[in-house]
Amino acid sequence: MKNIVQIIRNKRDGGILTRDEIDFIIQGYTKGDIPSYQISALLMAIYYQGMTFTETTNLMNAMMHSGSIMDLSKIQKPKIDKHSTGGVGDKVSLVLAPLMASCGVCVPMISGRGLGHTGGTLDKLEAIPGFKTRLTRKRFVKQLRKLGVIMIGQTREIAPADRLLYALRDVTATVDSIPLIAASIMSKKLAEDINGLVLDVKYGNGAFMSDLRVAKKLARTMVQIGKQAKVKVTAVLTDMNNPLGEYVGNSVEVIEAIEALKGKGPSDLMEVTYTLGLAMLKLANIKGGRRLLKNNITSGKALDTFKELICAQGGDILVCEDYTRLPLAKQKIYVRASRSGYIHLIDVYRLGMLLVNLGGGRMKKEDVIDPSCGFRICKKIGDRILKGQTIVEIFSDNPAAMRRVKKEMVPVFTIRTKPCRKKTLVRETIQ
Amino acid sequence: MKNIVQIIRNKRDGGILTRDEIDFIIQGYTKGDIPSYQISALLMAIYYQGMTFTETTNLMNAMMHSGSIMDLSKIQKPKIDKHSTGGVGDKVSLVLAPLMASCGVCVPMISGRGLGHTGGTLDKLEAIPGFKTRLTRKRFVKQLRKLGVIMIGQTREIAPADRLLYALRDVTATVDSIPLIAASIMSKKLAEDINGLVLDVKYGNGAFMSDLRVAKKLARTMVQIGKQAKVKVTAVLTDMNNPLGEYVGNSVEVIEAIEALKGKGPSDLMEVTYTLGLAMLKLANIKGGRRLLKNNITSGKALDTFKELICAQGGDILVCEDYTRLPLAKQKIYVRASRSGYIHLIDVYRLGMLLVNLGGGRMKKEDVIDPSCGFRICKKIGDRILKGQTIVEIFSDNPAAMRRVKKEMVPVFTIRTKPCRKKTLVRETIQ
Repeated sequence: MKNIVQIIRNKRDGGILTRDEIDFIIQGYTKGDIPSYQISALLMAIYYQGMTFTETTNLMNAMMHSGSIMDLSKIQKPKIDKHSTGGVGDKVSLVLAPLMASCGVCVPMISGRGLGHTGGTLDKLEAIPGFKTRLTRKRFVKQLRKLGVIMIGQTREIAPADRLLYALRDVTATVDSIPLIAASIMSKKLAEDINGLVLDVKYGNGAFMSDLRVAKKLARTMVQIGKQAKVKVTAVLTDMNNPLGEYVGNSVEVIEAIEALKGKGPSDLMEVTYTLGLAMLKLANIKGGRRLLKNNITSGKALDTFKELICAQGGDILVCEDYTRLPLAKQKIYVRASRSGYIHLIDVYRLGMLLVNLGGGRMKKEDVIDPSCGFRICKKIGDRILKGQTIVEIFSDNPAAMRRVKKEMVPVFTIRTKPCRKKTLVRETIQ
Repeated sequence: MKNIVQIIRNKRDGGILTRDEIDFIIQGYTKGDIPSYQISALLMAIYYQGMTFTETTNLMNAMMHSGSIMDLSKIQKPKIDKHSTGGVGDKVSLVLAPLMASCGVCVPMISGRGLGHTGGTLDKLEAIPGFKTRLTRKRFVKQLRKLGVIMIGQTREIAPADRLLYALRDVTATVDSIPLIAASIMSKKLAEDINGLVLDVKYGNGAFMSDLRVAKKLARTMVQIGKQAKVKVTAVLTDMNNPLGEYVGNSVEVIEAIEALKGKGPSDLMEVTYTLGLAMLKLANIKGGRRLLKNNITSGKALDTFKELICAQGGDILVCEDYTRLPLAKQKIYVRASRSGYIHLIDVYRLGMLLVNLGGGRMKKEDVIDPSCGFRICKKIGDRILKGQTIVEIFSDNPAAMRRVKKEMVPVFTIRTKPCRKKTLVRETIQ
């Protein structure tokens, strides 16, 4: 008989857990045989002591096998997914998924919701009237075969142990642990029966990991886990010291993504999209490179695929032409620079939290989101600004919240007299 | 509003908890507002990060005030208690409490039960037919005024937060943390309304802390907490690399304690008893020293007080003259030395666990104890032994268990050819 107290003590003292022990823990917790107070003590011990690569892989496997694993073997196309560790203004998936499908890649994308300062792809998609992010497994495969792309939320069948464990980590300050993050992400992604995975691992003050070295370590761990499981994984390290794109919110980010699919996306958003897209093409063994990606945007093929996707998932495709069909706040106020100079720093974490204050994000899973509000970020790090110029536009129909957020928006931007270099957006690719 | 996740994160990262935060945690957990999975994560963080002396005192105070605090102000005599951190064969309380009462010290002794390898005073007392260890608060004060001594278990009213917290630590591998141990012990003892406290802090392979330095640190912390609370505390560091006395078990330890009160106690038991007794006399400002203690044993005064105590708590006082009135195993087997030499090492922890195997101890709180079984330890570290001589006698009425334990008893004793020094029993006194 395995003794959970002895397992906790062993990890507490820097020991290594066996595969059997990890299976025992995950199965026991999923079945409700091991109480959460023992798991949370173990998670905290893991936070301090870490896990070896073998332990991390075993944890990933145990969580993956806690639920069902998809079978996409009937789909001939290369199946490649993309996952981001989360940021502010990150609407890349909305552009990338239809774009890649238009290039012949099959994209079975299972996304998450926003929590805390980061937004979520599902919340953005649900700003589109009628768009459904919960589909049965049968329809999942059917739509993938027909369209080559689907964008839904995590189903109850996939890695239930991860869902339970993540909920516990969230309330016990044990989220930021590389082995726990790596095992969590990979257990969900590898259950999708994909051939390849491109990871957007973000670092900087708007990311979960502000430190580039920590982000790199996470990226390397996930690439290795993929290798072990014979799934090709490419990780791209991208900077999150700036919000991505011009808009932060839900409806406003949908609009920005549609604009991008029309060839009018902001350069930072397009740079990340193309970098990840190229990596996906490579994993799919599809030739054509950046030119193929650009062509499918210019020709409207990518936008058409997005429309087909919206249509297949019950959404209103007319939003692509008439943005007023999206829930949009009627009021707008401006935050202006109190001095001239250069933007040296943006507190992106705080910016994300201000969207939560405005109602556009959530602190707890149960919170309901107001998709109509948001920000337009007019200046990024390195940009010159004159006193009185607009830094941020705030959209909301709640004047009190808007005024409160306006006041708190001022210290988000640090303006200094000296010029300042722009940030390198795409830092490194790890394969 | 205090945020428990932020408190956990702060401690996780090495921060210091404020008094308000500690009160919030202890009150919240006692009331059931904070779930145990958050508390256990916090306990594990405290295990790694420790606590400052101020945090430890605040924790102690919060736990102490989670319940009611006794009022012994009507008792004029100096009220001094003794507490041991637990060992194998430790029956000192059974001798010391009546002895000190016979010297004019008031001893309001609240003891615990055995758990794991260590025995408990309550379990030993309950081997005496009829002896009750649960009394109402009214009877508690009444008996103390009349007899000057009482020996009972922890009541539900005293430090309920500690009871809850200890139960959680026990199942989450967060017991061995100096600030948590110190706050736990002191919260219960200081709620007794005592003027002084003598602590027997044990170290060695049969103690909770094998390391002398760690035991010293714990002793110092508790002495300091006492100072802060204006209660005089003396800590004595004693060696637990040997079991204490000749007998290990319940009925057999009661007999050994009665023998000690008759002046026939083994020298190690008497050394610890007199050392702690002297410290208690000193805290009580009672003159007479070791001579007074010895006189009260020789004259039979201490034994008479023990009989009065047994009588007051419903026990059979005739056990003091007729040991067969105690539940005693009828069968006995001998473990003999397989070679000649000197005892170099005794695995006291394992010895304690073998008593559990025999039925004389418990692994879980709910386990029922068989008071009739036990061991007689014939040799201690440094003793010479000849091949074929008895090392241990095993008493039990369960032949199968007895045989199993006999086999496992052999490696408990390490015999080598070279002579070996005896252990220093009383190492240091900290005031």
